Amino acid sequence: MSTRSPYDIGLDRNAANHAPLTPLSFIERAASVHPERTAIVHGRIRRTWAETYARCRRLASALARRGIGRGDTVAIMAPNVPAMYEAHFGVPMAGAVLNALNVRLDAATIAFILEHGEARALITDTEFAPVIRDALARLGRDILVIDIDDPEGPGGERLGAVEYEDFLAEGDPGHAWHPPADEWDAIALNYTSGTTGNPKGVVYHHRGAYLNAIGNVLAWNMTAHPVYLWTLPMFHCNGWCFPWTLALLAGTSVCLRKVEAGAIYRAIAEEGVTHFCGAPVVLGMVIHASEAERRPFGHRVEVMTAASAPPAAVLEAMERLGFRVTHVYGLTEVYGPAVVCDWKAEWDALPMEEQARIKARQGVRYHVLEGLMVADPETLRPVPRDGATLGEVFMRGHIVMKGYLKNPKATEEAFRGGWFHTGDLAVWHPDGYIELKDRSKDIIISGGENISTIEVEGVLYRHPAVLEAAVVAKPDPKWGETPCAFVTLKEGAEASAEEIIAFCRQHLARFKVPRTVVFGPLPKTSTGKIQKFVLRERARRLAEGQP
Amino acid sequence: MSTRSPYDIGLDRNAANHAPLTPLSFIERAASVHPERTAIVHGRIRRTWAETYARCRRLASALARRGIGRGDTVAIMAPNVPAMYEAHFGVPMAGAVLNALNVRLDAATIAFILEHGEARALITDTEFAPVIRDALARLGRDILVIDIDDPEGPGGERLGAVEYEDFLAEGDPGHAWHPPADEWDAIALNYTSGTTGNPKGVVYHHRGAYLNAIGNVLAWNMTAHPVYLWTLPMFHCNGWCFPWTLALLAGTSVCLRKVEAGAIYRAIAEEGVTHFCGAPVVLGMVIHASEAERRPFGHRVEVMTAASAPPAAVLEAMERLGFRVTHVYGLTEVYGPAVVCDWKAEWDALPMEEQARIKARQGVRYHVLEGLMVADPETLRPVPRDGATLGEVFMRGHIVMKGYLKNPKATEEAFRGGWFHTGDLAVWHPDGYIELKDRSKDIIISGGENISTIEVEGVLYRHPAVLEAAVVAKPDPKWGETPCAFVTLKEGAEASAEEIIAFCRQHLARFKVPRTVVFGPLPKTSTGKIQKFVLRERARRLAEGQP
Ligand SMILES: Nc1ncnc2c1ncn2[C@@H]1O[C@H](COP(=O)(O)OP(=O)(O)OP(=O)(O)O)[C@@H](O)[C@H]1O
Ligand SMILES: Nc1ncnc2c1ncn2[C@@H]1O[C@H](COP(=O)(O)OP(=O)(O)OP(=O)(O)O)[C@@H](O)[C@H]1O
Ligand SMILES: [Mg+2]
Ligand SMILES: [Mg+2]
Repeated sequence: MSTRSPYDIGLDRNAANHAPLTPLSFIERAASVHPERTAIVHGRIRRTWAETYARCRRLASALARRGIGRGDTVAIMAPNVPAMYEAHFGVPMAGAVLNALNVRLDAATIAFILEHGEARALITDTEFAPVIRDALARLGRDILVIDIDDPEGPGGERLGAVEYEDFLAEGDPGHAWHPPADEWDAIALNYTSGTTGNPKGVVYHHRGAYLNAIGNVLAWNMTAHPVYLWTLPMFHCNGWCFPWTLALLAGTSVCLRKVEAGAIYRAIAEEGVTHFCGAPVVLGMVIHASEAERRPFGHRVEVMTAASAPPAAVLEAMERLGFRVTHVYGLTEVYGPAVVCDWKAEWDALPMEEQARIKARQGVRYHVLEGLMVADPETLRPVPRDGATLGEVFMRGHIVMKGYLKNPKATEEAFRGGWFHTGDLAVWHPDGYIELKDRSKDIIISGGENISTIEVEGVLYRHPAVLEAAVVAKPDPKWGETPCAFVTLKEGAEASAEEIIAFCRQHLARFKVPRTVVFGPLPKTSTGKIQKFVLRERARRLAEGQP
Repeated sequence: MSTRSPYDIGLDRNAANHAPLTPLSFIERAASVHPERTAIVHGRIRRTWAETYARCRRLASALARRGIGRGDTVAIMAPNVPAMYEAHFGVPMAGAVLNALNVRLDAATIAFILEHGEARALITDTEFAPVIRDALARLGRDILVIDIDDPEGPGGERLGAVEYEDFLAEGDPGHAWHPPADEWDAIALNYTSGTTGNPKGVVYHHRGAYLNAIGNVLAWNMTAHPVYLWTLPMFHCNGWCFPWTLALLAGTSVCLRKVEAGAIYRAIAEEGVTHFCGAPVVLGMVIHASEAERRPFGHRVEVMTAASAPPAAVLEAMERLGFRVTHVYGLTEVYGPAVVCDWKAEWDALPMEEQARIKARQGVRYHVLEGLMVADPETLRPVPRDGATLGEVFMRGHIVMKGYLKNPKATEEAFRGGWFHTGDLAVWHPDGYIELKDRSKDIIISGGENISTIEVEGVLYRHPAVLEAAVVAKPDPKWGETPCAFVTLKEGAEASAEEIIAFCRQHLARFKVPRTVVFGPLPKTSTGKIQKFVLRERARRLAEGQP
């Protein structure tokens, strides 16, 4: 392998034949090829690609004039507004790293992230002034604060020295930004949801962002100029890389400050939305919309879902409403979605319920992910493809993060053995599709048997009275653990614990049936995930006879 | 820029988060996700992705067993048969470089290429035994020769030690091939068409092949599972990277030993072909098919054209027949197509003729090409976007070749100033679309004025009696040069030189009108391009009063 061939001589990289991969090239193309197309819709605001690109260049220029450059962190706290979209281009055009904050975090966590991420600037929507004021006070260090005072927003206090539009006015719309010198340079910093503990700072590079923006196109069979509704927060894995995908396809972003069923149906009917993404909780919202919120629509609407396991019942209900759902799976660590339940035409002929069961599987690798396997967490030996043996999900390739910021220990653990350890447990089906059964931390072990909480929840979701359900382990002196179900009923619906348990008996092996059913609302993270660690704590207290 | 940020520490490349970009990963995915889908149709042969992948691995394994490895050249002389497709994967899986030969080359040129490219093995279809026998004799060096004895072929002499199927049988279908250590490693060696002189050996790398395979999807709005007819020779820029695109999309390749109108219509009707590519000469074949050759088809067929300027009249005729044509432009040096006439929905409302005129422009950069400009050939200063100022076309980015093999001088010239010099002349329109006017070597300068031969040809193609036309410079004592037209008339059609000239007068400025019209068939390269250097020579002789 060390011999030199003629191909190794005089054929090196140069400015003509090599460029760093960066999604910033997408917006330059959108603006130059489709300058007049609509890039952004936000209430009464409509902006073309030429305008949006100019605004992004202004942002980069204004940041650069304030001394912000390569490797500096710029945080943003905002809902899905134009400024949030623009930050995905303007910040990296300045060489800086975008750190989009989860808007539902508390002041202490935000202060922790601003400190840990070493943010030099913060762009913040006035809606969040109260929590940001508190976070900045805790930070105890002065940073540049830019307020977004969105005309579509609720107003609120300005905390910083300059308003976002004024800040843009400082910048040059023709700013000659530079692509990163190295495609491995950081483009974004995203803290994990914290479902399993303290959030970790995941670092993305330009190459990965470029590739996963394309990965979405391939996995979802997208073509030019989609009309995309922003139901998925852009702070969640950079909106699964879709800000960059939309520039690539010169699509239209329909912004949304608040995700509500009525607003979703309205955008579909009035803006001709063709695509949106969301956690299963968003799908639930669409399914359970009131008559007043619903609007008829004649075109096909594509929906991508991930973040937690979509119960088959939810998938089925969406399809019946005329949506086409694509189920993907990923993590903050892999730029959002990295696995897709790649749909086969022959499955269309199956009964709807069967289709939903197939679609509830997480699937196969994204085209741009190099490796995916279910394997023994210790030996990394792949499990048999028998649909039964439980193993951990491992990934490798272009769209795996650079690592966790300032956390070499966690980074090393995550990459042990040359694979990224997801912490998710799955089985591998004979057809190569993986199916998640649980997180490593959530699985219930009862009398030595594994119980997949996802499986038990899937049955609960089929009960006609159940709106939402989550199952966790409850400590048990005899079995070690037993399943404990937390259930929210649909409005006006009624069911007793006994009925629910009886229903589960019909559809589950006996040892998997919940022993306890608790009714009430479920605690969720800002990305719509149920906080099982909160429920586990409740179950533990129940076991101890505490309230 | 030299300060280290926290993003530069402890976040390096490793086996989990970094992999070389290579199109070989596409076939692995196609075979594992869609093992039962049809990959290849060739006469009575039908093979799935699982079978095709196994055959490619056998090929890699058999080559490796013969000692062929990294940086070794494997040449192939074959029409669009399954072995040709498999070579695009099997050869680079062995670490070797694929050198697909133009099947219409003569023995001397083939011997030159085998020598220059240092081929260690040659896979050759028995149809070409006579010319290859001669070429091997001239080579005067023993190389491994593998004969393809295609059951769909015309038979012919076997020249080598082993037949292709027997060679595959030597290999291991489960062969554990390795991706290249470096994505910059060579994957293919393609000699240019030689339209302008001696062919040069263009070297592609894995990264560029990966990216332009994706570039095709984006430019052509392709989705999963196209049925692709192989009208474009795979030896031409590796079939514009489509062998890799088809693996990416798990599409079906319908092979074709010989491009004929009847076979094209038959494949559309019987195999449900959805996509094909070809030079304008292939489009002409489809347009002028006889009634017996035509077949009705109910679905939309997408056609991509490039290689020479498609006359507006040809584009218009195709659309009227129900094909949707996408016009792209590229060179061997940029992995085939790199520029696309990105179509805008609003143009659909224009009259067909106007649409064709717009579509005859070459367009804008591929999504995966980083830079495209029309500029002064010396200063590299962009020309104004006025649709009038002539300049040279320049490109830069991921899909520009590594360089010319063993030709540092040509490589350096091609990349002078950090841009790839195409040698094509164009104007830049106000909307950012480029329009080719000529090759640098073909442009006619008459009385100090530039005449675009493409423009004059465009008018000739609109004459109802004209099948094909080419215009070249004829030396002229007074004007320096004047346009000389070579014309082939449609079967049964009649027209005199005077009529043709009168027709041109109606549609062209006076100085652009051909002074001379010569009737007869046109000399072409194997990629369907008219050999203008041959015509120029004829025009020169005409000027000198020679026959
Ligand atoms: N389609 C899906 N089906 C089931 N679970 C999913 C799916 N998509 C994502 N998930 C879950 O979400 C996790 C990734 O979520 P994310 O990166 O937002 O943060 P988190 O893992 O919830 O938080 P933390 O890592 O801080 O605990 C995955 O590991 C998986 O458990
Ligand atoms: N859409 C198009 N319109 C006009 N010309 C085109 C188009 N596509 C390709 N071409 C012509 O084909 C050329 C590229 O062809 P190719 O790389 O096959 O070899 P060649 O340039 O003909 O041969 P050589 O470089 O050896 O002279 C371009 O430089 C351009 O002149
Ligand atoms: Mg996690
Ligand atoms: Mg050329």
